[in-house]
Amino acid sequence: MESEHGGDIYSFAKRLGIRPEEVIDFSSNINCYSPKVEKDFNEIDVRPYADPNYTSLKEALAAKYEVGSDQVALFNGASSAIATLLGLYSKATIYAPAYGEYRRYAKSVTLINRFENLFDFPLQNSLVVFVNPSTPDGDYIALQQLFEIWQMQNCTVLIDESFLEFTEFDSALSFLQEYPKLYILKSMTKFYACAGVRVGTVISTPENIQQLQKHIPMWNISTFDEVYIKEALKDKRFELDVKFQIKQDKKLLFRLLERSEYVEKIYFSDTNFFLVKLKGIDAYGLQEMCDQENILIRNCENFDFLDRFHVRFAVRPKEDVAVLKKVLDA
Amino acid sequence: MESEHGGDIYSFAKRLGIRPEEVIDFSSNINCYSPKVEKDFNEIDVRPYADPNYTSLKEALAAKYEVGSDQVALFNGASSAIATLLGLYSKATIYAPAYGEYRRYAKSVTLINRFENLFDFPLQNSLVVFVNPSTPDGDYIALQQLFEIWQMQNCTVLIDESFLEFTEFDSALSFLQEYPKLYILKSMTKFYACAGVRVGTVISTPENIQQLQKHIPMWNISTFDEVYIKEALKDKRFELDVKFQIKQDKKLLFRLLERSEYVEKIYFSDTNFFLVKLKGIDAYGLQEMCDQENILIRNCENFDFLDRFHVRFAVRPKEDVAVLKKVLDA
Repeated sequence: MESEHGGDIYSFAKRLGIRPEEVIDFSSNINCYSPKVEKDFNEIDVRPYADPNYTSLKEALAAKYEVGSDQVALFNGASSAIATLLGLYSKATIYAPAYGEYRRYAKSVTLINRFENLFDFPLQNSLVVFVNPSTPDGDYIALQQLFEIWQMQNCTVLIDESFLEFTEFDSALSFLQEYPKLYILKSMTKFYACAGVRVGTVISTPENIQQLQKHIPMWNISTFDEVYIKEALKDKRFELDVKFQIKQDKKLLFRLLERSEYVEKIYFSDTNFFLVKLKGIDAYGLQEMCDQENILIRNCENFDFLDRFHVRFAVRPKEDVAVLKKVLDA
Repeated sequence: MESEHGGDIYSFAKRLGIRPEEVIDFSSNINCYSPKVEKDFNEIDVRPYADPNYTSLKEALAAKYEVGSDQVALFNGASSAIATLLGLYSKATIYAPAYGEYRRYAKSVTLINRFENLFDFPLQNSLVVFVNPSTPDGDYIALQQLFEIWQMQNCTVLIDESFLEFTEFDSALSFLQEYPKLYILKSMTKFYACAGVRVGTVISTPENIQQLQKHIPMWNISTFDEVYIKEALKDKRFELDVKFQIKQDKKLLFRLLERSEYVEKIYFSDTNFFLVKLKGIDAYGLQEMCDQENILIRNCENFDFLDRFHVRFAVRPKEDVAVLKKVLDA
């Protein structure tokens, strides 16, 4: 069986006897469009140690998010940031369903079912984990009321904004001044379409970042990845163009899902994927049908509060949606 | 001031007002020769998630070290492996001087001065850290007797073999069968001359590796780095050629150090660097002289049991040694 995460095109391709490049991957929710990266990667000198402070990369990210570069900590991917941050707190409150790595690294965990009890009180003094927009459904929540609750409960707050760039909504960064017990996680992977490039960014107050830095191993970013992200951030048109394009593709996918006899409900999504509740077939049955077209989808059974009738589809270009149509319109 | 680690050519260059490429770096003890990596890095597709098990990279490393691929865990650099392993033990016994990151991540630490008391007993049940060949001096120690002591004290043992490939000596891997509480750390950085490529390898029993894997975040290796290491390992001539070449260069450096009026003692080295005790000048004074020639050397004052009269020089090509000669023969 495939990995419990999305995007494992290798196991899937092996099982089908095809090459990983032949997989049409609706399972991983990264951007299906890539920024222009105009750099000769054969010219990169990997011999020397990188600047141990990754000064220029931090400056580029700080400029993008309009914070000071002393407010930025870099991790080898968002998963690594999650492992480190969750490891620092004895109690976590996770608004679920959420990305599985949060539970994996929480020392002890309380879940809040955000579909049903969004305004429940989190455990006092715990680390609150809130993904905004959420996975696997893609809903963006305005956070003012929640911050009031979190403050009452004296929680430290981690907002995962891995998918925020697909939306027009505000970052929780604006809360940082009045609520300093706050960490914002930014993944480069999703919007910049580079799951193979391992850079995750945590933004907080300079004091928090200085403390956090003590838990980050030396030289945790590949020189290749450092260059890649700096170059990707230079493509300023990308953000505008891609949002427009994804909106078009998203409509197409929505229409296909909406009229499929297998779809009971499409969850509201502000971002580049849809969570779907199936009817008359479960995720395993639909996966089997998708196998025929080399299509990989995300079975969401292993998310908290979901079951084997939930699957996720990422927004993809219309050619790929046309192939998916063969399965869903059958 | 420069970073407390070697190899920070960026701060050094900035202070001297030169470009990092102009620095002659005797401070970082990585190989001054590089393997042939015949791959077009512009063709690498970084969009998909990597194989979450890094199967093919593990197989390549397992073949190199002649172990099973289920005996291999991969980290984002040796420093990251150190952080994770040391974090798992409440007590560490470090044979010092050693790489500073060991102390940084030890929860509580006892030091053994390996210059003076090599056969002292380590703390019972502690995690023993032994770097072989050592830094900053480069001495290789046959481990049979030490393993007897470690066994008596019921220690778990971590042998850091980052520099072993520069020698003809045996790996501690041969102890694994009779001593399963053993981890061997291999850094790709040093011998394969790629400090910017972040892959550190830990080898142990399949059972230990399975346990360790629980503490490793998902997708912790860059796709670029994965490709780089796989390609570097294909250059089979490199290992032979470079050992010969380094031996020539090492003799040249040794002769220069030996006759310098500033050198009181050259520590015995089995590898690609020399630790030197200075006379008539301290590390700061010598660094100042080296500044004139854009030469960066490693002040070893911050190593345990050493002082400001200790510096380290990496083996470098004869052109660079010729520049160093201007300083040391002055």
